[in-house]
Amino acid sequence: MRNLKNLKIATAALAVFGLVGAVPAYAAVDGETAYILNTFSFLVNGALVMWMGAGFAMLESGLVRSKNTATICLKNISLYAISGLTFYLVGYNLMYLDVTGYIGTLSPFWGPVDTDALAGTFSDGGYSASSDWFFQMVFVATAASIVSGALAERIKLWPFLGFVVLLTAIIYPIQGSWVWGGGWLSEMGFSDYAGSTLVHSVGGWSALTGAIILGARKGKFNAEGRVNPIPGANLPLATLGTFILWLGWFGFNGGSVLALGSAASAIEMSNVYANTNMAAAGGVITAMILTQIMYKKVDLTMALNGAIAGLVSITAEPADPTVGMAILIGCVGGAIVVFAVPLLDKLKIDDVVGAIPAHLCAGIWGTLAVAISDPEATFLTQLTGVVAIGVFVVVLSTIFWLILKYTVGIRASEEDELMGLDKAELGLEAYPEFGQGSQSF
Amino acid sequence: MRNLKNLKIATAALAVFGLVGAVPAYAAVDGETAYILNTFSFLVNGALVMWMGAGFAMLESGLVRSKNTATICLKNISLYAISGLTFYLVGYNLMYLDVTGYIGTLSPFWGPVDTDALAGTFSDGGYSASSDWFFQMVFVATAASIVSGALAERIKLWPFLGFVVLLTAIIYPIQGSWVWGGGWLSEMGFSDYAGSTLVHSVGGWSALTGAIILGARKGKFNAEGRVNPIPGANLPLATLGTFILWLGWFGFNGGSVLALGSAASAIEMSNVYANTNMAAAGGVITAMILTQIMYKKVDLTMALNGAIAGLVSITAEPADPTVGMAILIGCVGGAIVVFAVPLLDKLKIDDVVGAIPAHLCAGIWGTLAVAISDPEATFLTQLTGVVAIGVFVVVLSTIFWLILKYTVGIRASEEDELMGLDKAELGLEAYPEFGQGSQSF
Amino acid sequence: MRNLKNLKIATAALAVFGLVGAVPAYAAVDGETAYILNTFSFLVNGALVMWMGAGFAMLESGLVRSKNTATICLKNISLYAISGLTFYLVGYNLMYLDVTGYIGTLSPFWGPVDTDALAGTFSDGGYSASSDWFFQMVFVATAASIVSGALAERIKLWPFLGFVVLLTAIIYPIQGSWVWGGGWLSEMGFSDYAGSTLVHSVGGWSALTGAIILGARKGKFNAEGRVNPIPGANLPLATLGTFILWLGWFGFNGGSVLALGSAASAIEMSNVYANTNMAAAGGVITAMILTQIMYKKVDLTMALNGAIAGLVSITAEPADPTVGMAILIGCVGGAIVVFAVPLLDKLKIDDVVGAIPAHLCAGIWGTLAVAISDPEATFLTQLTGVVAIGVFVVVLSTIFWLILKYTVGIRASEEDELMGLDKAELGLEAYPEFGQGSQSF
Repeated sequence: MRNLKNLKIATAALAVFGLVGAVPAYAAVDGETAYILNTFSFLVNGALVMWMGAGFAMLESGLVRSKNTATICLKNISLYAISGLTFYLVGYNLMYLDVTGYIGTLSPFWGPVDTDALAGTFSDGGYSASSDWFFQMVFVATAASIVSGALAERIKLWPFLGFVVLLTAIIYPIQGSWVWGGGWLSEMGFSDYAGSTLVHSVGGWSALTGAIILGARKGKFNAEGRVNPIPGANLPLATLGTFILWLGWFGFNGGSVLALGSAASAIEMSNVYANTNMAAAGGVITAMILTQIMYKKVDLTMALNGAIAGLVSITAEPADPTVGMAILIGCVGGAIVVFAVPLLDKLKIDDVVGAIPAHLCAGIWGTLAVAISDPEATFLTQLTGVVAIGVFVVVLSTIFWLILKYTVGIRASEEDELMGLDKAELGLEAYPEFGQGSQSF
Repeated sequence: MRNLKNLKIATAALAVFGLVGAVPAYAAVDGETAYILNTFSFLVNGALVMWMGAGFAMLESGLVRSKNTATICLKNISLYAISGLTFYLVGYNLMYLDVTGYIGTLSPFWGPVDTDALAGTFSDGGYSASSDWFFQMVFVATAASIVSGALAERIKLWPFLGFVVLLTAIIYPIQGSWVWGGGWLSEMGFSDYAGSTLVHSVGGWSALTGAIILGARKGKFNAEGRVNPIPGANLPLATLGTFILWLGWFGFNGGSVLALGSAASAIEMSNVYANTNMAAAGGVITAMILTQIMYKKVDLTMALNGAIAGLVSITAEPADPTVGMAILIGCVGGAIVVFAVPLLDKLKIDDVVGAIPAHLCAGIWGTLAVAISDPEATFLTQLTGVVAIGVFVVVLSTIFWLILKYTVGIRASEEDELMGLDKAELGLEAYPEFGQGSQSF
Repeated sequence: MRNLKNLKIATAALAVFGLVGAVPAYAAVDGETAYILNTFSFLVNGALVMWMGAGFAMLESGLVRSKNTATICLKNISLYAISGLTFYLVGYNLMYLDVTGYIGTLSPFWGPVDTDALAGTFSDGGYSASSDWFFQMVFVATAASIVSGALAERIKLWPFLGFVVLLTAIIYPIQGSWVWGGGWLSEMGFSDYAGSTLVHSVGGWSALTGAIILGARKGKFNAEGRVNPIPGANLPLATLGTFILWLGWFGFNGGSVLALGSAASAIEMSNVYANTNMAAAGGVITAMILTQIMYKKVDLTMALNGAIAGLVSITAEPADPTVGMAILIGCVGGAIVVFAVPLLDKLKIDDVVGAIPAHLCAGIWGTLAVAISDPEATFLTQLTGVVAIGVFVVVLSTIFWLILKYTVGIRASEEDELMGLDKAELGLEAYPEFGQGSQSF
């Protein structure tokens, strides 16, 4: 970072005054280099998305009570493991292979196979098949993580993991094939860059049906209908989780450029990184200002959810908006959280970490907002996609929740809930030396 | 990591004996590939710098008492959000656009605009404008994070954020324009590679004036002038924060090569990564040995601050020193912390996390040490830069702190400080189930 | 992530049906670009490996009692610092320079020197010497981290760090030279891609000899030989540590391709990332199912160690197996942990965090399993390497432990152990406001 005068100022001045020179000849990226760069982008950005698994684990660990903390940790690491296994066994080809318009093929991804490598040919858009699989795979767990947070503190471990299998093996890939697999919604022009709807709303709808069918935690809503706030046990961990998610989101949205093998894709990725960051910033500040005005106190958990809502909002189209537009999209996301959290309480839907406001509500907003910044998208098509996927996920997830409920049962017994799931299901305590987790409520 | 014999040994032997062959012809990087690599370096390294925001949040969360933990979390995530917004609205162009030598232009960065992309031309040093903006933006929050740590546990939330606006919109970019914007200090030959002075000392000076004007926490210094140590509530989080900072610093210094489009820049970045790591290592070990000798106990928080001081020390010139020299520079940084912390106590300046020793004192040392390793730098020029920026920041930050003090007030009321800022300003507790945070002092 | 239909489906279909076209001409990567990509891979993947230091610190912080938490934090950050220093002063050249077959040269790495840069020549496999040094350096600390976890809560700080010096300066590089330095085991055909044996078993053997010589913690095994479980104080931190290790392992194994300058190396790295992830997933799920069946409860710490064991198992050969094979290799690793933990208890060997099962036992399994997936490896050669390195490390580490024991002493006094090492050796508490750490046992 030595003196930047000449280059930086020249570039900036040109940018402001719109001056561009004549187009000189330049050497372009060769095919193999493009192949490497595309592949490496999948790996680096994909590793950041994998890291979001830790983000959800910490966010949720911080927002549940200490008596359920070890269980939520276990749910998060195991759902990430399961998501990879189901996406390998079923999901990837159901989503991407030989799509008829409505569903892919039921077969495992017998990767890694790299036809380009076999052929010794490297088209500009080429990349290693297993790098693509890796990148798509890490997305799946995100949807499941949203569910784990909303239903924490009362759902039994194994039935929850059973739902994760159904969500990641069936629900996620089938609706995913409609858009990213090239199916009917994609044909219609529906656009969802990195998954405001395909990932975040899908998790959000599944969480919503689950929360309704499962019911609220004991003591959350009392007889007269008043809401009893149940504070999380470890807010710095929740803050850490939000920072992790923020970092991971650069990979989530930035890797969704799906290429790095040309200057155009590098520029697009840069715009995505900048817009992703600024939408989150807008979400934080909006949530802070609104809670200060409405409640005379700034709520840290609202600010954290504001960041997440800003990130979810920009995810449907992080490349096209200007930075200023990205900030506004994030601000609306942050505002949505502040209003949706008490609304859910009013409806007596118990969402432990605020996942439904941050992922479902902001996801719908972000998907519709594509119509503002992308001239090729229309509000009607975007709405069609939101509704179609919403109906599909609500119907299927309701069926799956009910099957689980009336077979193995999904709700922990009242004694177990009172004792805490850590002691009941894991036989241990998350913080055996601090306070009296299991007796505090 | 298969057998490395041939290549590695051949290279190593050549390195040791200084044997280099004749220069054969080789194919060079083409313009578009260089553009992509330069851009991707900004994104990857910039994401690491963003991650430092989490590092400061965890370090400070661990070093404050539990009754102020949620507040410091909120300050850290909101100052990161604000830094991005102000740098977008004002800071970037004030720092880099059309610099007269003393100040840039007051206008928003209406990016992302990529003139190279418009022109279809890719010079070797080219990169996406928004990737550069992203990388410069993530630096701004670092300066503000330093202030939040030093002034924790007694400054009110919104006035603190008001200072963050002034720091990131005015103080940081104006002095930054003097060097990285190509202004007068850069013309004079002052060198600060990644910001020992421009980032770390700026935060440190602002923290110092703030700490003096704000006063010490109640109970820190008693009537007879004795120091009452106030231990942090969660040392593993502080350790985690330090590891995060260490990791993020590879991006901070490594990305400051500002290029990856040539072998020379890749080599420079490698040297920077290696030197950055080893300076931190030197800082840790020096702080440990000194505290063992001086106090017969090794102080974990000193070791953590030793790492940070080592990192700050090498930041002014991480590319030129040999690895051995980098270790020594870091060792001196670690020693500075061990001696500066009790000195501040003696001066009754209350710096909650040791930010002033680690960032300001080590930052001055690192900036002066450039004269040792870089033949183009002189001690006098380096000192001129340190003093000029020091005076500028001290004067401006003092004015801003005093304005805030005599308008909205900056200090929490005595009751609020006793109760803890979490309950007073946020209406919640960071660890509601553990111990009795708010009653412990 | 716009509509992926054409490209993705075309590729996938080709992959499934094995159709590959004729080989067209394509432009290959030029020498300087390959040099940059190889170098950048070392830096990015190396930074991920450095991050594993934080992973071990958090894992171990979460699994010890609160009265020893600050000490384990200090041990982890200082062992990382020491590992870098010794590898610089002695280790690197002892491992890689002028190997006679059994040992390298005793001289410091006077890097960074880049002969390629001096010569202006860039061979396809070339990379910056200091990027290679950086990548090899970050591996060393991993071996030492394994020891710190196993011996926690009773070993004195400085003698432990003394052992770290001997381990990283002598044991690690000498046995490393036998394989990665091109020595006799490599000549024989022994294969260990990223260090199941060279890194993880080496740490594991050192931990095993240390645990035997040091003895168990007071109260772990009572007079009648029954095991008294001593729960860790902070399980979300242990979970975070495992996620960090999982993320860092992409760099550990992926960077061990040692190249990114060709499509072949990019494909190999992609396979490594995918396989590394899936082996960990297999380890988690296997450990969960087995503990549910055997103990009727799912043990979170077993699931975490299952992930680590899966990762260790695939480390000896993460490139060659199919994804399905990688899952199976990881599943066996997870099972090994579940059976080895009670076995160690039966032998009255006190391994605080389960490091010996996860790193030593799974490391042996992974090294032997190379014979299954790699046609060039034989079971006998793999076994020879495992035994040779095992004997070498056991003998040398035993000698070093005994020297330390009978000179400076390695075991904390009984009062110090009861009080906790934090108060005894550091004079502070990790969580001064939560519970009564030092009185809880």
